[in-house]
Amino acid sequence: MKDLSYTKPHEVRQMIRKGELERPTAGMCRGYAQGNLVILPKNLAYDFLLFTYRNRKACPVLEVTDMGDREFRQVAPGSDIAKDIPKYRVYKKGELLGEYREIQSFWREDFVSFLLGCSFTFESALMEAGIEVRHIQAGSNVPMYITNIACRPAGVFAGPTVVSMRPISNDKIVQAVQITSKYPSVHGAPIHIGNPGDIGIKDIHKPDFGDPVEIRPNEVPVFWACGVTPQAVAMKTKPEIIITHSPGHMFITDIRNHQLAE
Amino acid sequence: MKDLSYTKPHEVRQMIRKGELERPTAGMCRGYAQGNLVILPKNLAYDFLLFTYRNRKACPVLEVTDMGDREFRQVAPGSDIAKDIPKYRVYKKGELLGEYREIQSFWREDFVSFLLGCSFTFESALMEAGIEVRHIQAGSNVPMYITNIACRPAGVFAGPTVVSMRPISNDKIVQAVQITSKYPSVHGAPIHIGNPGDIGIKDIHKPDFGDPVEIRPNEVPVFWACGVTPQAVAMKTKPEIIITHSPGHMFITDIRNHQLAE
Repeated sequence: MKDLSYTKPHEVRQMIRKGELERPTAGMCRGYAQGNLVILPKNLAYDFLLFTYRNRKACPVLEVTDMGDREFRQVAPGSDIAKDIPKYRVYKKGELLGEYREIQSFWREDFVSFLLGCSFTFESALMEAGIEVRHIQAGSNVPMYITNIACRPAGVFAGPTVVSMRPISNDKIVQAVQITSKYPSVHGAPIHIGNPGDIGIKDIHKPDFGDPVEIRPNEVPVFWACGVTPQAVAMKTKPEIIITHSPGHMFITDIRNHQLAE
Repeated sequence: MKDLSYTKPHEVRQMIRKGELERPTAGMCRGYAQGNLVILPKNLAYDFLLFTYRNRKACPVLEVTDMGDREFRQVAPGSDIAKDIPKYRVYKKGELLGEYREIQSFWREDFVSFLLGCSFTFESALMEAGIEVRHIQAGSNVPMYITNIACRPAGVFAGPTVVSMRPISNDKIVQAVQITSKYPSVHGAPIHIGNPGDIGIKDIHKPDFGDPVEIRPNEVPVFWACGVTPQAVAMKTKPEIIITHSPGHMFITDIRNHQLAE
């Protein structure tokens, strides 16, 4: 399998567009930010944009297109939103219709596309600082949990905050907070450190999404707002149609992770 | 004239609401953030929200209400948007209809209210750090200029970035950048340092808004994106109706300036 760690984003997007690449994007284009995709009809776009605004930590927006526009002009000039992701999911009335290599046949002129920041960015910053990221080492998906922390509702959108968890050793917690604080556009600082019960998580070994990871004796579970939140909330409203990336199959931007640091 | 430097925001809002206070709010409620108000009909709210998103430095949104809601529930619980500002401006089709002590008679159920961050916050941080803010010392209004830096358009909203200028002595420029960078929700870091001509300003001594200030030999003009930008842009679209605060007569929040630091 060709190593794409150091291939340029526009080249990888071209390969994906030509159908030459259908696998998850983790590890591709080292140093460049990847994002979560949510496509909604315009009649839901205002409520959704306001929701992302009111819940910035869970919904860090990297770009919003004009209605009907298939290009993320700022973060990925020349991109085609309908083709440049390896695997899409199309939902109708909240039900998964199926997974697709591209979504041209579903495209509508009233679609608005949202690109949301993804934790890959701060995970690479953590690893560069020598902080171990357990699920990456284990080659598994990050564990995610539905919390009792309500999002601030906006119009039809409401629901609980979903968090991702990474075990951090006691002597690295301060550093982990400092590093992720620098990335407000990709979830930023943790929203909770320590006892899972405090935020309504009953069993840390049974995540609602993703895979469980080992928490060692010298480690504390640290929780970050998760990009699954807006998708979960959007799904609850059972919109006529909503299109997202398939988990792990992200949109790769031309923005360097460092550009997202503030 | 009663000194309200250390009065609590909700008390000052009550005085304003009762009509006991009609003067500019500069210097009131030390340590608390003040904001710019823009009220628009819902049919323009999506484009405006997207515009603020795409031009965050010029349009740092502190809160957006639900349609018809007259309270900024997050930043000022119990507030009444139609009464808690000392002086309002009502514009119809881009023309100033007049200035008003309160706007209940104009209120509509389809109004959406935007509260935008204001540079008072970082100016107090600059002064606390021993950096002189010239227009405050001079007791004049900050000089503002229309630049040749285009905002990213959104729907009906488009136009140039308006900047405010503060002369900073050479040995304090780095510190001024560092301090204001900590306040992304109130314009953040400067967008230009030095030659006014570089950003399309013909005569630094003739600001488009506000008053000119002295620039001393050891000082450099430093430019920050200005909250006048969204109002100027909104006005250009000549909306059927738009209501704003009157310059200098801001909305005082319960949020401490330090809470806006990141």
